[in-house]
Amino acid sequence: MSILVMKFGGTSVATLDRIRRAAKRVGREVANGHDVIVIVSAMAGRTNELVGWVEETSPLFDAREYDAVVSSGENVTAGLMALTLQEMDVPARSWQGWQVPVQTTSAHASARIEAIPPENIMAKFAEGMRVAVVAGFQGISPEGRITTLGRGGSDTTAVAFAAAFGAVRCDIYTDVDGVYTTDPRITSKARKLDRISFEEMLELASLGAKVLQTRSVELAMRYKVKLRVLSSFEEPDETAGTLVCAEEDIVESNVVAGVAHSRDEAKLTLTDVEDRPGIAAAIFGPLADAGVNVDMIVQNISEEGMTDMTFSCPVNEVKRAEKAMADAKDRGEIDFGALVADTDVAKVSIVGIGMRSHAGVAAKMFKTLRDEGINIKVITTSEIKVSVLIDRKYMELAVQALHAAFGLDRAA
Amino acid sequence: MSILVMKFGGTSVATLDRIRRAAKRVGREVANGHDVIVIVSAMAGRTNELVGWVEETSPLFDAREYDAVVSSGENVTAGLMALTLQEMDVPARSWQGWQVPVQTTSAHASARIEAIPPENIMAKFAEGMRVAVVAGFQGISPEGRITTLGRGGSDTTAVAFAAAFGAVRCDIYTDVDGVYTTDPRITSKARKLDRISFEEMLELASLGAKVLQTRSVELAMRYKVKLRVLSSFEEPDETAGTLVCAEEDIVESNVVAGVAHSRDEAKLTLTDVEDRPGIAAAIFGPLADAGVNVDMIVQNISEEGMTDMTFSCPVNEVKRAEKAMADAKDRGEIDFGALVADTDVAKVSIVGIGMRSHAGVAAKMFKTLRDEGINIKVITTSEIKVSVLIDRKYMELAVQALHAAFGLDRAA
Repeated sequence: MSILVMKFGGTSVATLDRIRRAAKRVGREVANGHDVIVIVSAMAGRTNELVGWVEETSPLFDAREYDAVVSSGENVTAGLMALTLQEMDVPARSWQGWQVPVQTTSAHASARIEAIPPENIMAKFAEGMRVAVVAGFQGISPEGRITTLGRGGSDTTAVAFAAAFGAVRCDIYTDVDGVYTTDPRITSKARKLDRISFEEMLELASLGAKVLQTRSVELAMRYKVKLRVLSSFEEPDETAGTLVCAEEDIVESNVVAGVAHSRDEAKLTLTDVEDRPGIAAAIFGPLADAGVNVDMIVQNISEEGMTDMTFSCPVNEVKRAEKAMADAKDRGEIDFGALVADTDVAKVSIVGIGMRSHAGVAAKMFKTLRDEGINIKVITTSEIKVSVLIDRKYMELAVQALHAAFGLDRAA
Repeated sequence: MSILVMKFGGTSVATLDRIRRAAKRVGREVANGHDVIVIVSAMAGRTNELVGWVEETSPLFDAREYDAVVSSGENVTAGLMALTLQEMDVPARSWQGWQVPVQTTSAHASARIEAIPPENIMAKFAEGMRVAVVAGFQGISPEGRITTLGRGGSDTTAVAFAAAFGAVRCDIYTDVDGVYTTDPRITSKARKLDRISFEEMLELASLGAKVLQTRSVELAMRYKVKLRVLSSFEEPDETAGTLVCAEEDIVESNVVAGVAHSRDEAKLTLTDVEDRPGIAAAIFGPLADAGVNVDMIVQNISEEGMTDMTFSCPVNEVKRAEKAMADAKDRGEIDFGALVADTDVAKVSIVGIGMRSHAGVAAKMFKTLRDEGINIKVITTSEIKVSVLIDRKYMELAVQALHAAFGLDRAA
């Protein structure tokens, strides 16, 4: 018996008709001899509606209640998918997170999966059930309360199930037909990648490519889950989609695999900060406590013991960051002149495992941007990526220029 | 410590604004010193939407999946109500049926509550929680699957909690301000009753008055739960709503307490049935097995060992009844000429505990209908009610005439 995990995102189950189309794909895999675990998202738009209600009811909501409300959308899809499969004479039943159980931490609204005991579902497979439909995105805390895994969490549910059940593959059905060299809405020259390494996918997901939740790629890398991203709107064949796999399974690759961008960034600068040991901890400790996801950090050269500290974070966390800094100042933990927020910035990144063995990749990036007259505000690098913060108005231009410069453009 | 149960129906929680209004009432009772268990329905329209999706997906649905889907609406309201109370600084949390746990039978889509262990919720009250918000209508089967209690099941949830927790009262907030002598949409002369006995309420609920689920009245009667029906749209005072209570708590009462009606009835006649011992069992056994709720039964006088058998059932069960009878005929269990369905009938009933001690009530009913020229097709009686099946077009007229004849009309 081989188990296959198939995950359908919100647009793939947005209507009863689309659920039927998804169920047909599942039925085909059952006919191929697989026992299938289907992970479903909420019907497109539902989760946003529920989140909107929670936020309108209680701006600083109790995350335990948020999870109880927001998890309900997946339960609906799971039941409807099971019914649809039954109508096709495929033995199926639905499972909610707590029924499996999907055991998570108690970090409500962004819980992590700790364990998925396979016994209950395996017992049903042994009885002749062919498809377990599982509500994605949700689990149960040690206290017995419902948790959710954060936006995009159904991807992580799918990969975690693939790991827990030793699945032959984890297929992520979505509204795009794979992972692209860059966002096709920004350049029509973007190309679909047949394969991409876990490491590159991890960077792309972290850097704003919305095709997979970052955590799901981490899990797939750790447990060596063969992960495929493909469209639920096209007829699949053997080469459909993009396979996310280990580096050694990729025969040839570009130095740069893709260009990522993130529009919703903000750059904050604390002016006139005293340049003393421990100042970074005094600044970034309170920010972390306030739940601000600081990304890039730059410290200017010190003059007369004073410096400016610049960092970036998602634009919707700016208010929280401002409050955290003002509070820390009030408590006398830090002193600074002003906190200047620039919310008109975007991040553009190049990613590729080839960078490890090729010199001059960052230099080529900076030259390409300079040639377009684009000023770089902040830079960060890792072994396999270079990111820059630039004025948002240049974002598309930067992506297009870099895509061409690194030889990613599709042949015309 | 005294516990009060408050139940809010779908129209009372239809929007975030209405949830806030309901939460204010809860807050007032907390300020009065009660610990409160709030039972909520799904936001108005949600359950119908979910039921519609299930029926469109699978006309002969697996009731276990139906329950998994349809129960989700209540979970949303429960979380939103808890959040709203928290915003008002009232310590509250939500509970889904399986978390309490509300233990039910495995009769999916129409399960019965078997037990509600109070320990989990009582422990939270002991810790200072003041309101437990419970998703109504749902529970968990011995197999660990989600069950629902049938339409109107949140009323039953509320009464069962009141019984399990020894509540001082169970207040059912709805979109009407109490129980009326008859449907005010049919005659403007309908009067609100201040009190009604459990027995009368039970008959009225069974006979089509939609204000309370029948099962909830049964439970209230058995466990002597003080049950009050009142409007969530009016400011309550001490005499608000209708108290459903034991007969001995009603000082004065009419012979007839109310006139009920049910529009969605059908009359079926099996012609040329052999009149032999066991024929009724041979007919009604298969109907019961097919889930047809047979209500009234009439057997015509036998001629030459043959008879006609007439019965009524809800109009949406006619197809199931026809199939059950055809199948029984195919299996050779019964023989009959034809099955004639009349779906243009309605049921009108008078209900009152006073009938026990007053003769001639039925005769007065028949005379009243005759004076209006209304033909009676089937009659059934119990100790405290008389029901007749009539042509549907006469239904309003019959209700109005009976309401007047039994002295129920409001003074002009």
